[in-house]
Amino acid sequence: MKDISKVVLAYSGGLDTSVIAKWLEDTYHCEVVTFTADLGQGEEVEPARAKAEALGIREIYIEDLREEFVRDYVFPMFRANTIYEGEYLLGTSIARPLIAKRLVEIASETGADAISHGATGKGNDQVRFELGAYALKPGIQVIAPWREWDLNSREKLLAYCDRHGIAVERKKGKSPYSMDANLLHISYEGGILEDPWAEPEEDMWRWSVSPEAAPDTPSYLELTYRSGDIVAIDGNDMTPAEVLAYLNKVGGEHGVGRTDIVENRYVGMKARGCYETPGGTIMLKAHRAIESITLDREVAHLKDELMPRYAKLIYNGYWWSPERRMLQQMIDESQVNVSGRVRIKLYKGNITVVGRESEQSLFDESIATFEDDAGAYDQADAAGFIKLNALRLRIAAGKGRNLLD
Amino acid sequence: MKDISKVVLAYSGGLDTSVIAKWLEDTYHCEVVTFTADLGQGEEVEPARAKAEALGIREIYIEDLREEFVRDYVFPMFRANTIYEGEYLLGTSIARPLIAKRLVEIASETGADAISHGATGKGNDQVRFELGAYALKPGIQVIAPWREWDLNSREKLLAYCDRHGIAVERKKGKSPYSMDANLLHISYEGGILEDPWAEPEEDMWRWSVSPEAAPDTPSYLELTYRSGDIVAIDGNDMTPAEVLAYLNKVGGEHGVGRTDIVENRYVGMKARGCYETPGGTIMLKAHRAIESITLDREVAHLKDELMPRYAKLIYNGYWWSPERRMLQQMIDESQVNVSGRVRIKLYKGNITVVGRESEQSLFDESIATFEDDAGAYDQADAAGFIKLNALRLRIAAGKGRNLLD
Amino acid sequence: MKDISKVVLAYSGGLDTSVIAKWLEDTYHCEVVTFTADLGQGEEVEPARAKAEALGIREIYIEDLREEFVRDYVFPMFRANTIYEGEYLLGTSIARPLIAKRLVEIASETGADAISHGATGKGNDQVRFELGAYALKPGIQVIAPWREWDLNSREKLLAYCDRHGIAVERKKGKSPYSMDANLLHISYEGGILEDPWAEPEEDMWRWSVSPEAAPDTPSYLELTYRSGDIVAIDGNDMTPAEVLAYLNKVGGEHGVGRTDIVENRYVGMKARGCYETPGGTIMLKAHRAIESITLDREVAHLKDELMPRYAKLIYNGYWWSPERRMLQQMIDESQVNVSGRVRIKLYKGNITVVGRESEQSLFDESIATFEDDAGAYDQADAAGFIKLNALRLRIAAGKGRNLLD
Amino acid sequence: MKDISKVVLAYSGGLDTSVIAKWLEDTYHCEVVTFTADLGQGEEVEPARAKAEALGIREIYIEDLREEFVRDYVFPMFRANTIYEGEYLLGTSIARPLIAKRLVEIASETGADAISHGATGKGNDQVRFELGAYALKPGIQVIAPWREWDLNSREKLLAYCDRHGIAVERKKGKSPYSMDANLLHISYEGGILEDPWAEPEEDMWRWSVSPEAAPDTPSYLELTYRSGDIVAIDGNDMTPAEVLAYLNKVGGEHGVGRTDIVENRYVGMKARGCYETPGGTIMLKAHRAIESITLDREVAHLKDELMPRYAKLIYNGYWWSPERRMLQQMIDESQVNVSGRVRIKLYKGNITVVGRESEQSLFDESIATFEDDAGAYDQADAAGFIKLNALRLRIAAGKGRNLLD
Repeated sequence: MKDISKVVLAYSGGLDTSVIAKWLEDTYHCEVVTFTADLGQGEEVEPARAKAEALGIREIYIEDLREEFVRDYVFPMFRANTIYEGEYLLGTSIARPLIAKRLVEIASETGADAISHGATGKGNDQVRFELGAYALKPGIQVIAPWREWDLNSREKLLAYCDRHGIAVERKKGKSPYSMDANLLHISYEGGILEDPWAEPEEDMWRWSVSPEAAPDTPSYLELTYRSGDIVAIDGNDMTPAEVLAYLNKVGGEHGVGRTDIVENRYVGMKARGCYETPGGTIMLKAHRAIESITLDREVAHLKDELMPRYAKLIYNGYWWSPERRMLQQMIDESQVNVSGRVRIKLYKGNITVVGRESEQSLFDESIATFEDDAGAYDQADAAGFIKLNALRLRIAAGKGRNLLD
Repeated sequence: MKDISKVVLAYSGGLDTSVIAKWLEDTYHCEVVTFTADLGQGEEVEPARAKAEALGIREIYIEDLREEFVRDYVFPMFRANTIYEGEYLLGTSIARPLIAKRLVEIASETGADAISHGATGKGNDQVRFELGAYALKPGIQVIAPWREWDLNSREKLLAYCDRHGIAVERKKGKSPYSMDANLLHISYEGGILEDPWAEPEEDMWRWSVSPEAAPDTPSYLELTYRSGDIVAIDGNDMTPAEVLAYLNKVGGEHGVGRTDIVENRYVGMKARGCYETPGGTIMLKAHRAIESITLDREVAHLKDELMPRYAKLIYNGYWWSPERRMLQQMIDESQVNVSGRVRIKLYKGNITVVGRESEQSLFDESIATFEDDAGAYDQADAAGFIKLNALRLRIAAGKGRNLLD
Repeated sequence: MKDISKVVLAYSGGLDTSVIAKWLEDTYHCEVVTFTADLGQGEEVEPARAKAEALGIREIYIEDLREEFVRDYVFPMFRANTIYEGEYLLGTSIARPLIAKRLVEIASETGADAISHGATGKGNDQVRFELGAYALKPGIQVIAPWREWDLNSREKLLAYCDRHGIAVERKKGKSPYSMDANLLHISYEGGILEDPWAEPEEDMWRWSVSPEAAPDTPSYLELTYRSGDIVAIDGNDMTPAEVLAYLNKVGGEHGVGRTDIVENRYVGMKARGCYETPGGTIMLKAHRAIESITLDREVAHLKDELMPRYAKLIYNGYWWSPERRMLQQMIDESQVNVSGRVRIKLYKGNITVVGRESEQSLFDESIATFEDDAGAYDQADAAGFIKLNALRLRIAAGKGRNLLD
Repeated sequence: MKDISKVVLAYSGGLDTSVIAKWLEDTYHCEVVTFTADLGQGEEVEPARAKAEALGIREIYIEDLREEFVRDYVFPMFRANTIYEGEYLLGTSIARPLIAKRLVEIASETGADAISHGATGKGNDQVRFELGAYALKPGIQVIAPWREWDLNSREKLLAYCDRHGIAVERKKGKSPYSMDANLLHISYEGGILEDPWAEPEEDMWRWSVSPEAAPDTPSYLELTYRSGDIVAIDGNDMTPAEVLAYLNKVGGEHGVGRTDIVENRYVGMKARGCYETPGGTIMLKAHRAIESITLDREVAHLKDELMPRYAKLIYNGYWWSPERRMLQQMIDESQVNVSGRVRIKLYKGNITVVGRESEQSLFDESIATFEDDAGAYDQADAAGFIKLNALRLRIAAGKGRNLLD
């Protein structure tokens, strides 16, 4: 048993983390500091204060981190067109580093020697919280109750509450899914999703209407980019969190951004997850469009080749690592000229790019044109280009190498 | 001036290649062999025979290559989840290697010393034709009239026809776009698309209805995969070309598969292109789904990291190269267990995966479950896993390295 | 405590594994099967039989695996020019998969439910043994005594021997280093090497003379390659193990193959290691030379880019994984034409390639020559080649992008 | 024929570029500006002034660029441990971007509309000069006489000199090799080297003694690194060019840095080259050593995986490109903590690292030790680490996947 005097707990105010708060005190005889963050999950965070007080907590941190979250985590990630395994926009993964950072900062502020969280021993989140914490404060202790205790069912948790006088709201119609939400997405796991052949029921989805239920009339948006980030929509300047909230709203109304996948967890298993990421889905599409006219070809290709690795780092919990930082520096550098406007159309689940323009555009109509280019491009150059690119292939074929074997 | 006695021409029967046939005879005083292939472009190829005969051609090749095209080119490419610059499914690129191969094979059969094609000096297709030809028959000569002659406008071509008695169908309402089609896609370039801010008009699109015009009722399809390729739809066995034709039909009816992008050509310029790829868009989505339950995680990630490079090889014309072949061998090997079924829903432009199952599935419900797993997974293992993955980060932080600088 | 009835132990006959054999019986009350392999470590393996019998072992496996080791592990690895962190030839790493494979095969043959090994909890070898065992026989149990017991010093081990009547040869002048050897190399760790600033003493090295002590006269060798592997030296056909043994002998006499590095272990720490790899060092150099004339450029570059990842897989213990196998297939495919002869010179630590030739050579003197090439290469082609490769750069510069900022 | 009024010529003062100066005037009726740089090639550059004057040149640039060359080109490249195709240290490649930059800068200063160089149409240097020039000054014209004229032999050049009154020093014993030199290396091509089986004669080498002729006593050097670059040797502060010159001298005396390879040129052919790079060879070895204790593991591995691509960019002439710059930023960022000291021993061609130390060292003896570590590392953590890393492999094996097939 570790010797702990004070622990900072990532506290949601819900059943699980309320039990954890009590369990930590009882098990480690330590003081508990709660930390509750508003990352845009769509629920009030202020009620967590009363709940924490009811548990006898004396140091209570409640913080609105929405702007920091989008500005310093979501936007940098989207500069890389990041997507894990071709499908997942990393909505949960990208929120964990910020929470880890605040947990250890609060530990330093309050003199705590440990942090704790409510993530299970089977998932990625424990890894993301703990790698982040160790990387930022190497001497910190970590308590992961789900890996230690035997309260491994809802019934045992409720019994624990009864025994220890923890007030529980017994909601009717509790969702059968394990969910996580922040400004970037809401996720669903468990329940019938554990069968990869089962289609989720329509009433699982909370943030978006189905394409079927979306309006019959499209919406057009004009997104203004500056150095890779959206800074205005339809001409209105917005902060990062405002951008994402607005795109979530409009995207969700048009049925945009649902994903249903089986993904590979860092701990070694495959898991089914459903995600709603309306704003993020729009941002990925639009960012590729603004890059398509402003990025050099080889820079774009290098980014594409490194993206899966960057996505994997974030998914696996290595946001706070020198290798992620090294890649980030390269990505950010690539975005200096990624400025301009993208026009998109939203309609029943579809995002269509219908225009892109930029003062930094590298699209050169005078060269690309099918019409007379007035000598901007000498077609005869292509012959030599092809001949030398073919030389190694011709030499090999001439020496009997056969590609048709 | 090259000394040419016989040339095999990739001949469509249209204005441009008819002029080329005549021009080759006049310019090089050589015999012309025409080669016309049915790759599923949706137009009859047989009429090309009469047109070639009218031009005085004596050796006329007309071939149905649809099955070979899909089986040996399209399907292998889709095993890699191939997509160029995040958006383009390589519909034109993947057809060129097959044409290049037949051109040089016909050259060998007919004793021709050259091949010729109608691709311009600004595009990628000249590169793809010629690299392929040189790689397969290193001594072949290549004549690219668009890089040599001065008939660089439609008016000059028509005047040439008049002068040389070439019959031309002067269609009304000719499309203002440069188009290319085969079983995988149809593409549009030129015209108003040369302005990246301009939205294409609805009547440009030929293969698919718009999402707006698609039915209000979704269709569900069940795709059966064997070793990475679709072998049956809704329980009906199909050949590769049948699979793709069927998915094009159903996908097109549901408004699936339109793309509007600016891409980077190998010859160094950016170009706007619009594409309809209904079947290919479905195949990409569904293939990722069947891989999601049958591929090992690290194999999947390695494929994802190499895909952009593989896509670039095909885009740039290196299908017939040892490096593409080397990658293909790795990709094909990865597909041995990619068998099973994927259920998808098509609705107004959306493709939703709603189920996947496989006898080769690596999804292990007993481990992934949120319920009691009867000891299949020991949550305590996660602590050591995290501690050792964090060790290098903790050592660095302990020695004063600061990731928050 | 796991419930174990029979365990297969990787047994060297030395102090540590003798103690382990006894400790396993005492702790787990299980039967112990010993497995001792000759991988070319340079010590007799047969004496291990008497020692095992003295411990009361009834099932004793002693095997000469030298040919299998070099043919199926060392040679395939060298086809990739594999080197970890620019310096380490993976001599220890590559032996572990074979031992892991035999351990679980013997477990199957003898009905054992567990395997055990003498690797410590700080090193890479535990990972390599255990990942291999789990990958090949997923239900196997693994006992790693160094992670479980408290016999964590030589004194405690000797005391244990005394208490349990285990005979120990108390050699004088025992090396202060932790060593490992097989046909590919011998390694040294610990002792004064734990200070990265300390130069090892000359008498540490066992397989090679120092360059200072090597002969004043060079030796020349002609190595014959077939499909990437050496099959003859100086015209004499040799088996894989004979090749490596011979190169070790000649290389060691000429002071070739010493390395002194700090490397990054998979478990997260940096460690100092010294290695003697005479034959392997020669093979790396010579293999690159035969590839230099027989491999296509892009194939060679693709191999070079993937090599660090392949090396890392082997170092980290993932020989038995689908991703290593997938890479191997690609590497092996690349070697089909890597045949021919390389002539090298060994002199006082230096390996110099002085000639390479091949029937599969892609070196084309008629094109490469500085003399008149009779039109084999048209220098004018280079202008177009450069112009189109420069086009994207010129467009960007023309639009004001400045690379000198 | 291009319309040129003034051209800046990269002028060595030798036969070829003297002929070119005259030929440019005669052919293009333009003014010629000469530019001669001291990059440490070991020959006086000042005599080029008299020769240019004798040719009637009025604008003559002669510059000592040694410090700029090493500081801004050589050192940044070595931060990446750059090596092309496993063997070539890019001595010629890295000098070209600086010359290209000065050529176009001088063109701007003098109002010239073209540049010219003496590189042939078969080699890489034409590409490097011209890509650099186009990238930095997109409207520049380039004249490459070797691709245009018919003076394709030494005899024709000499005859041209006679006809035009160009004074030529007819040296006896002129080297049969084509050579290039700068502070980083000297290279040899052509002559008997065109046969890859032929060993070069000892008298070809100019900068280093053979290992046989090197002293019988080793030299030790202590190199001090700051942020990836050597700033002092044996405690004496030195400028970049002083560092390289000193290492060349000491390395050359000890027979260090000869290489004999067949390499793949960008223009598509294989070519034999011999190189002497004494200082560079030392720098590569020593830089890896300082990185081995100061770089994070994953940062080091990422660098290793990207290095071949970075090397290829430089080899192919893309120093002045956004993708090289993007990689450079990442590389430079990785070097912030690469400071400390490396001790090396030079002896008859061998470079041995015998010590490395750093205030930024991540080597943690307390953890790495074979002795009691007082709890710094919990060996039990390794069990969980291995179990979870093995999980995907065990699931696959449990479902019947067989890695031994």
